[in-house]
Amino acid sequence: MKIAIVGLGLIGGSIAKTLKKNTRHSVYAIVRNQKTAEAALREEAVDGIITAEDLRDMDFVFLGLYAGATISYALENADKFKKGAVVCDTCGIKKEIVEALTLPLSEKGVSFVGCHPMAGREFSGFAYSLDNLFDNASCIITPNKDTDGEAVKRLDALAKEMRFRKTVITDPDTHDRVIAFTSQLAHIVSASYVKSPSLFMQEGFSAGSFKDMTRVAYLNEDMWTELFMLNRKPLSYEIGCVINALTDYKNALDSGDTDTLHDLLRESRELKEKSDELTSQKEIERP
Amino acid sequence: MKIAIVGLGLIGGSIAKTLKKNTRHSVYAIVRNQKTAEAALREEAVDGIITAEDLRDMDFVFLGLYAGATISYALENADKFKKGAVVCDTCGIKKEIVEALTLPLSEKGVSFVGCHPMAGREFSGFAYSLDNLFDNASCIITPNKDTDGEAVKRLDALAKEMRFRKTVITDPDTHDRVIAFTSQLAHIVSASYVKSPSLFMQEGFSAGSFKDMTRVAYLNEDMWTELFMLNRKPLSYEIGCVINALTDYKNALDSGDTDTLHDLLRESRELKEKSDELTSQKEIERP
Repeated sequence: MKIAIVGLGLIGGSIAKTLKKNTRHSVYAIVRNQKTAEAALREEAVDGIITAEDLRDMDFVFLGLYAGATISYALENADKFKKGAVVCDTCGIKKEIVEALTLPLSEKGVSFVGCHPMAGREFSGFAYSLDNLFDNASCIITPNKDTDGEAVKRLDALAKEMRFRKTVITDPDTHDRVIAFTSQLAHIVSASYVKSPSLFMQEGFSAGSFKDMTRVAYLNEDMWTELFMLNRKPLSYEIGCVINALTDYKNALDSGDTDTLHDLLRESRELKEKSDELTSQKEIERP
Repeated sequence: MKIAIVGLGLIGGSIAKTLKKNTRHSVYAIVRNQKTAEAALREEAVDGIITAEDLRDMDFVFLGLYAGATISYALENADKFKKGAVVCDTCGIKKEIVEALTLPLSEKGVSFVGCHPMAGREFSGFAYSLDNLFDNASCIITPNKDTDGEAVKRLDALAKEMRFRKTVITDPDTHDRVIAFTSQLAHIVSASYVKSPSLFMQEGFSAGSFKDMTRVAYLNEDMWTELFMLNRKPLSYEIGCVINALTDYKNALDSGDTDTLHDLLRESRELKEKSDELTSQKEIERP
């Protein structure tokens, strides 16, 4: 089939390269930046560059745009999509987007499906896109009650063709709540870690744990500000949980309470162990 | 020369294996556990197993013990070390140990030098020790005003023979202050991250950032409780910094203040960038 990708940033570019590498579909892109268009053609990440008018021929469309731009682009071009086409976004939050687009596109005979490819890098832009970014990633699909079930199946099948490690189907609310913990919180914690005045003394004193903790502090503030604001409530709750846990550790240290500190650490280790066990069991059970 | 290692855990075992692989010194170990002794001999990590009485023949001694055990072992066996020998610890905190051991061993004609090989794994014990654990690691050496300068040079030379990436010489106070930030804080933050009730929902929703954040939550609570308690003040200060930074983020989210959130994230990204630049510049300047 003919697949269009709107926006060739890190994610859009990686989707194009993955489709070209792992499937036989024709891949087209809509890009604003002329240099990105040239690079994509030169690297054979796409079969052609198209305009919004050409969307009428496209069976499948991935929107590789920021959250706000995803909504406005899809609504402004709602009349241009092919009847029966599947249109997916690729954003890190789902409720806002799925609510904004499902019914308006459905009224035009187009099936919108919320999609979150769970992979990223601390760099942005087509230049960093990879044809194997999704090899170890989940493709999360988030239908709501109005989503076309056939379109979900088509996206699921395409994700398998693209060789995502697996697909996870869940509702937008659950997605946003869990992603606040697994991804957004990680970025906030990393961005908080680097604010210590000790940051510029670390050279020669740091090992793997410091590198791991601060890696994603190098983030795109435009994209993440928008994603965080659209998921304020669950994210704020998760930040509160970490603050409370850190405060427990600080209090134990400040009061010299060795037993409590030991208990807190043991509890953390046991939680981590149990979580790893459950994950690896599920991995084994999955075909 | 003849080198003894007291205790073959992760660090002691890795020192033994590194010495055997990268140097021509004879390597002996003092171990309580018979199975560890057998494994070390079988894997040729050591040339022999010795007792404390044999310390009289050893030119160099690494103490691969927890902090409290390091101090008590060295004091209890102070008379057994060879005159002129260099004795080093390998603990993650330095002030307490360097203060406790430098003068008492000096009075016996033995040179104590504080040493912290900056590498680790989230697992403990000889079974996890590696002959390349220190390949990308700093060897931090922490003399105080009473430390024998010749002994520092001998340890520095041995660290180079062992192929540590580099040696860093600093005072015990600076070590403890910076390590509170680069290593101890990372473990506390990771141990706090896993306390969210969302932990057991993460499967299928997590990518690299979550794995990085929670890796060291799998920790040895006996060892870390001791290290944290011996470095309470700087560690508590660093935890306070993270709590403050997290609170700034939480407040911006709770009040829907997009501009402040964007500013906070940009500041974090710029700090991370600047810190990485300085580190890589120093790496380039170093011969």
